[in-house]
Amino acid sequence: MIDELGKLPGVGKRSAERLAMHVLRMDKREASALTRAIEEVKARVKPCTTCHQLSENDPCDICADPRRDGSIVCVVEDSSDIWAFEKNSEYRGRFHVLGGRLSPLKGIGPEDLTIDELLDRIRGGGISEVIIATNPDVDGDATALYLAREIEPLKIAVSRIGLGLPVGGSLEFADHRTLQKALQTRQKLTD
Amino acid sequence: MIDELGKLPGVGKRSAERLAMHVLRMDKREASALTRAIEEVKARVKPCTTCHQLSENDPCDICADPRRDGSIVCVVEDSSDIWAFEKNSEYRGRFHVLGGRLSPLKGIGPEDLTIDELLDRIRGGGISEVIIATNPDVDGDATALYLAREIEPLKIAVSRIGLGLPVGGSLEFADHRTLQKALQTRQKLTD
Repeated sequence: MIDELGKLPGVGKRSAERLAMHVLRMDKREASALTRAIEEVKARVKPCTTCHQLSENDPCDICADPRRDGSIVCVVEDSSDIWAFEKNSEYRGRFHVLGGRLSPLKGIGPEDLTIDELLDRIRGGGISEVIIATNPDVDGDATALYLAREIEPLKIAVSRIGLGLPVGGSLEFADHRTLQKALQTRQKLTD
Repeated sequence: MIDELGKLPGVGKRSAERLAMHVLRMDKREASALTRAIEEVKARVKPCTTCHQLSENDPCDICADPRRDGSIVCVVEDSSDIWAFEKNSEYRGRFHVLGGRLSPLKGIGPEDLTIDELLDRIRGGGISEVIIATNPDVDGDATALYLAREIEPLKIAVSRIGLGLPVGGSLEFADHRTLQKALQTRQKLTD
């Protein structure tokens, strides 16, 4: 049990031992409530067949919501990125979860992600713009460029989520790569 | 002396006392070297008459450097913002230091900044683009919009430094205002 608990993120050997000890002290009813909760979630939560985010429903609540704008699709790496948007960003379009990003060093190629599924979804019609919101680092940028090239023949707009100075931040404390990017991504204020 | 030292940024009453005690323990030669250093710098360092950054030379080294591109001017709030750019950003244009930003609440209006000087500099010719790099917060954004309106009649390009996700950051940890801005400032990847 300690070995299995130790595989959870943020749980080292010492924490795994403490968790295991806690489970041993639980009465039988509590312990089976815990295992049942895990088994139920694993049985119920599956990727949405449209956007591939983890959800109890299929289609998921976002894909099923008629008030969301289906013509804009924001492409993210993981389901947790959707939660970041849904918290407060006022984004009203839909999503597509890649299930990671291209990483030649880790042996993750296009076939390991839901790229074919995204292209099929676009070919299905009704989508006018794809916003690629992979993380703003080397692999995320490379994945964005790869996707843009794949989507280009389908004749819809492809954009990259804006990179630059974070809101509320200060120039003085920006690292030089962010400053450089912010100069490149400057926005016209006049015509 | 404790009162005067206590006015320095980051120096509270307790630190001011410790600094004062240190000065009292200095021998006379050391103490006068310190005061001479302060007086010399105050006498030598003045705003550059062109870009208004604090500099020992007038024009400053950046304004005097013929290898810098004089057709692009990056507008910043303070001289310290120039240092951020000069550290590593590969920016090769010139600068203009506003000396702060508009802030109605603090009673700082256009006449308190070097806005007239910037407009005169643009009217002098040779400038094709102004990049406004005031800090990415409410007052900084308002200052950028005010400047854009003032510069517009002079028929040169005005842009705002890019706001969005910082490079190397992660979507998951971005605050919602930055995510919202990053959606607005998305960049086209295809034509």
